[in-house]
Amino acid sequence: MRRTLTHLDDEGRPIMVDVGGKDETQRTAEAGCVVEVGGEAARLMRKGGMKKGSPLPVAELAGIMGAKKTPELIPLCHPLVLDHVAVRCELVGKSVQIRAGVKCRGRTGVEMEAMTAAAVAALTVYDMCKSVSRGIVIRDLRLLHKTGGRHGTYTAG
Amino acid sequence: MRRTLTHLDDEGRPIMVDVGGKDETQRTAEAGCVVEVGGEAARLMRKGGMKKGSPLPVAELAGIMGAKKTPELIPLCHPLVLDHVAVRCELVGKSVQIRAGVKCRGRTGVEMEAMTAAAVAALTVYDMCKSVSRGIVIRDLRLLHKTGGRHGTYTAG
Amino acid sequence: MRRTLTHLDDEGRPIMVDVGGKDETQRTAEAGCVVEVGGEAARLMRKGGMKKGSPLPVAELAGIMGAKKTPELIPLCHPLVLDHVAVRCELVGKSVQIRAGVKCRGRTGVEMEAMTAAAVAALTVYDMCKSVSRGIVIRDLRLLHKTGGRHGTYTAG
Amino acid sequence: MRRTLTHLDDEGRPIMVDVGGKDETQRTAEAGCVVEVGGEAARLMRKGGMKKGSPLPVAELAGIMGAKKTPELIPLCHPLVLDHVAVRCELVGKSVQIRAGVKCRGRTGVEMEAMTAAAVAALTVYDMCKSVSRGIVIRDLRLLHKTGGRHGTYTAG
Amino acid sequence: MRRTLTHLDDEGRPIMVDVGGKDETQRTAEAGCVVEVGGEAARLMRKGGMKKGSPLPVAELAGIMGAKKTPELIPLCHPLVLDHVAVRCELVGKSVQIRAGVKCRGRTGVEMEAMTAAAVAALTVYDMCKSVSRGIVIRDLRLLHKTGGRHGTYTAG
Amino acid sequence: MRRTLTHLDDEGRPIMVDVGGKDETQRTAEAGCVVEVGGEAARLMRKGGMKKGSPLPVAELAGIMGAKKTPELIPLCHPLVLDHVAVRCELVGKSVQIRAGVKCRGRTGVEMEAMTAAAVAALTVYDMCKSVSRGIVIRDLRLLHKTGGRHGTYTAG
Repeated sequence: MRRTLTHLDDEGRPIMVDVGGKDETQRTAEAGCVVEVGGEAARLMRKGGMKKGSPLPVAELAGIMGAKKTPELIPLCHPLVLDHVAVRCELVGKSVQIRAGVKCRGRTGVEMEAMTAAAVAALTVYDMCKSVSRGIVIRDLRLLHKTGGRHGTYTAG
Repeated sequence: MRRTLTHLDDEGRPIMVDVGGKDETQRTAEAGCVVEVGGEAARLMRKGGMKKGSPLPVAELAGIMGAKKTPELIPLCHPLVLDHVAVRCELVGKSVQIRAGVKCRGRTGVEMEAMTAAAVAALTVYDMCKSVSRGIVIRDLRLLHKTGGRHGTYTAG
Repeated sequence: MRRTLTHLDDEGRPIMVDVGGKDETQRTAEAGCVVEVGGEAARLMRKGGMKKGSPLPVAELAGIMGAKKTPELIPLCHPLVLDHVAVRCELVGKSVQIRAGVKCRGRTGVEMEAMTAAAVAALTVYDMCKSVSRGIVIRDLRLLHKTGGRHGTYTAG
Repeated sequence: MRRTLTHLDDEGRPIMVDVGGKDETQRTAEAGCVVEVGGEAARLMRKGGMKKGSPLPVAELAGIMGAKKTPELIPLCHPLVLDHVAVRCELVGKSVQIRAGVKCRGRTGVEMEAMTAAAVAALTVYDMCKSVSRGIVIRDLRLLHKTGGRHGTYTAG
Repeated sequence: MRRTLTHLDDEGRPIMVDVGGKDETQRTAEAGCVVEVGGEAARLMRKGGMKKGSPLPVAELAGIMGAKKTPELIPLCHPLVLDHVAVRCELVGKSVQIRAGVKCRGRTGVEMEAMTAAAVAALTVYDMCKSVSRGIVIRDLRLLHKTGGRHGTYTAG
Repeated sequence: MRRTLTHLDDEGRPIMVDVGGKDETQRTAEAGCVVEVGGEAARLMRKGGMKKGSPLPVAELAGIMGAKKTPELIPLCHPLVLDHVAVRCELVGKSVQIRAGVKCRGRTGVEMEAMTAAAVAALTVYDMCKSVSRGIVIRDLRLLHKTGGRHGTYTAG
């Protein structure tokens, strides 16, 4: 583990770190979170979930599009040419479980793209269910798995 | 509480709901979340926190800019002319506590803008600390308070 | 009908025309087009159309999001606070028929937002079917109906 | 020709397909369409066409900028580093004929970038002529030519 | 003149200031700058300036589109519904003189929109002339005139 | 030095020039400008400059994010995968001195990215100081240094 905050230069000024000296390698990352939508929203989603207009595919699409917006949202993120993005939202009990996977070949990882995809999918689920329940909580947004780059493979404990 | 998913039309097709018949009223919303950055990142942030380059003001700014991007990210959100956005990130123990507040005068609320601001600030904290700790978790992203609109004031329990 | 090209000033220089003197009125517009996807794509869409991943809801959502991007795409379009957007894509024979409707209260119309929504939905259908047929044609993209503003109601012949 | 809709996974869920296994090759695509602007708009365009403010160069520029926005507009499109974009709009009789050409070196083609460039140029012509004629129709938006990639060269019939 | 930096809260934290208590009034702003393109670029521009492809109309259009992007670029700027934008680029001697004017009806001024329009137009002139001269300088980017709002009319000395 | 305006084709029509035949090489560029903020703004900035909310880090961050928006703002700029961006704003007397550095590995240079980063940082300083002084001027925005590409190294005189 590095022991410095790599986005800050010697005087504590934020920078987009120089990745020019790194090799292009294959990178993957997977992130996930849970949206506790509550019983009423879950019931309505199940009832309407067979139809093409269910919140879940809207959230999946929003997550994919959100991954592409990562360098616009996260100030010090590098732009990347993504090779693959997929987001899966599943209703389990009273919660929506979200998983986002991203791949690219580049000089820096796709961790933030996977995290952003999961976050945007979760916010979209929230938006589409908020008229039914206002106590919705998004929890446990985190990296699940990561391959490629100097630090190698990481899997959440 | 409404008992329908308002973004879906009669056939379950997603729509941006018609707010043309609503009055323009003053709206506010406040959202929050917690980023568990871990002890090492917290220690480094404290050490460097006096400098202008600390992760927290970068995250606050990212959150403000993120609020303005809400209708681009959340597919069925209405564009809004925001009157005020503020984001506050504070390091408490091994966590960063984030609060985002948004105001506008409009035909629909600013709940999603506050949620998005908090989420983008949290992702930015994650991005700036991830070289130090990979087990970072964003949790409890939710609406804290809301005023204005047909449903009146809401405060999280 | 006006007899000048309103976006050009006296020397033929492009401008975003001054709508400051116009009243805010209720505006609606509806646009449509047809995507000739061919028999094989139509067959596969029908077969998979019951599933939530059919091209049509993806295109509908892309159209809604595209409407919000109109002032970024069309150089001389005014930014507008849209009140409502809906896009409907239906498979009829070997073609997808697209209709986009937009509403707002503003000083200028939403014609371009409806046209852009229909165009982006059509391009998305194209994108999702192009691996099956390369001879896809988008045709008859046009305004169908319009209300509000100085020129009053218009309905395509 | 492939016989599956490549953007859908096994359960019909939309994904940005994985192009990580493909080689980077030189790709080109050319798309075109026609905007029937009507006699009065054509006459005014001709009269003012010598001036630098004519609708055609505005539309050409909008098309070039639109090509760069393709992955933001088309949900499942990959981001690409474009090497070349050119758009040509010509007034022929009562119509504007539009051609857009795009080149890149990448793992996926530039078909959608060429289609989007032509569509945005056409919408811009529409926008700049709509005060003169409301019956404007955009027709025959389609791929004209394509080189590179697994499927090789394609020329519209 | 106010004696505080209005974008900073009591602890020096950046905020988008609350304009909710202000009245909507008519606002205008005009900004300008000069791009010293050098003799060779000026000569080539004059030679080709009669054609529709001259750098100046491209820069004018870029400036108009840039004005619409102001709240995305300037972190603490409010989104605004602009009523009018015009940019004029004129070749005088070896320099391009740029003027940008913006109008809106809102709770905050359009100073930054006019400044941004002029800056983006200047950068575009720079981009289109830089193959001919690398010593190009953009100078004297400033507000020329402003009306509306609490502070009333301002004209540069 | 080339003796043609490379963004214009034979008929003077703007194009994004074809860089497909160029080699990918390492590119760097550095640009700078000065914002004359006046004595009162300088005094307030110094007083509050120790706090994390000073205008300078906000401007530095805006500049970094602005660099990533270059191909959206400058119509004929190529999209690029940037490897490094840093912006430094320093208060010297009554002025803020801005330097922006950008690196990438690509087929075209990063001159416009460095110029845009410096411009957006300068506009942000202007925005955050304009309540204190309206006579602020941005001057001498220009390229300072450049390496890589066909024309080799350039250093401003």
